[in-house]
Amino acid sequence: MKKLILASTSTIYGSGYLEYLLPTLKSFFKGHKNLLFVPYARPSGISYEAYTKIVSEAFKKIDINVVGIHTFNDKQKAIEKADGIFVGGGNTFVLVNELYNQDLIEVLKNTIDNGTPYLGTSAGSNIASLTMQMTNDMPIVYPPSYKTLGCIPLNINAHYLDPDPTSKHKGETRETRIKEFHTYNKIPVIGLREGSWLQVDGNEVVLKGGLTARWFVKDKEPIEIETNHPIVI
Amino acid sequence: MKKLILASTSTIYGSGYLEYLLPTLKSFFKGHKNLLFVPYARPSGISYEAYTKIVSEAFKKIDINVVGIHTFNDKQKAIEKADGIFVGGGNTFVLVNELYNQDLIEVLKNTIDNGTPYLGTSAGSNIASLTMQMTNDMPIVYPPSYKTLGCIPLNINAHYLDPDPTSKHKGETRETRIKEFHTYNKIPVIGLREGSWLQVDGNEVVLKGGLTARWFVKDKEPIEIETNHPIVI
Repeated sequence: MKKLILASTSTIYGSGYLEYLLPTLKSFFKGHKNLLFVPYARPSGISYEAYTKIVSEAFKKIDINVVGIHTFNDKQKAIEKADGIFVGGGNTFVLVNELYNQDLIEVLKNTIDNGTPYLGTSAGSNIASLTMQMTNDMPIVYPPSYKTLGCIPLNINAHYLDPDPTSKHKGETRETRIKEFHTYNKIPVIGLREGSWLQVDGNEVVLKGGLTARWFVKDKEPIEIETNHPIVI
Repeated sequence: MKKLILASTSTIYGSGYLEYLLPTLKSFFKGHKNLLFVPYARPSGISYEAYTKIVSEAFKKIDINVVGIHTFNDKQKAIEKADGIFVGGGNTFVLVNELYNQDLIEVLKNTIDNGTPYLGTSAGSNIASLTMQMTNDMPIVYPPSYKTLGCIPLNINAHYLDPDPTSKHKGETRETRIKEFHTYNKIPVIGLREGSWLQVDGNEVVLKGGLTARWFVKDKEPIEIETNHPIVI
């Protein structure tokens, strides 16, 4: 049975990397001592080594050993054999492009579907969606497709931001952008605020963390979903 | 000689559609009484007709007649014969996708290069760049390429926003996103704040409006460019 944690962000304001999630991750990865880390999203253009080091130091606190996928020659096999998988945030276009280039989309999906526990943050959560189209990132590379893993039957907008009624900025609000998506697409979208995550057990998707989330369905007004509630598609 | 106005936004806070630009546009389009409008970017999913009506009402104030490109059977010919061209804002992915689908990229570039005056706002400015990669929009459709008109030898980031030092949000700042672009690309980028525009006369590109703009070159610290100064590539 598939098991995923899909977090809006790795880091919340005033707290260290993954700090707010560590108690949850300790229980989520119970019995899994080795984590395969995928650093391909390269936040701020950081190197794979530097990114893996940050992740490794965070997971040391809950006695989990982290190895970067870039250190394996056979990356497909590394995924298949992984005890647990974490795909970190950064630029979603860069991440998806690299997963396609290395031919890892299918093996990653199959491995997660077969029950290897998966953690995603930000771009890493986005790719568990049906498509990467709810990314906030800039298209700095051109991936072969926007189709992603489809581990959940919806799209995630990470780092969801509410419209600011005092703003003088005329760029589109997040809500406007998501509504524009629904002009062309039917996939429901969850706007996950920082500090929220989805916990997936088989076909059940439950909102976790202390906040509500914004739920967008084509041709309907968006609503708020309460924390600890399953999401009904 | 090519002549373009490439504005960060159509609308500034507390002002009507195009209102702040109308005096500039009156002089820019002097002697050009008919404007071909390209509504393909569809802000908020608005219809071509509704979008063209908004634009038409704004240009009435400076005695310019507006016709939407969607009303022509032969759209290539409509561009070639246009007295002036305006491509409005909205979603850049949708705009670029439609320009490719209708095979209008090349004819649009050639017509602008041959001297037909061109106005772009937001997405319409973005596409005058070498590539659309500095868009802030979501990839709600998958265009065949990110390559755009290349009327100027740089990329525009419209609606440029400075980092907010009081923000508790952990999503990437605009500056971080542009620096990530330069991990993979060499094209210089101008961050155009709302109320700024570029005036292009032949090969000269000058910053206009009351504000400075942010200038990003790969492997260099970003700098501020003063208004009324030509941009040196």
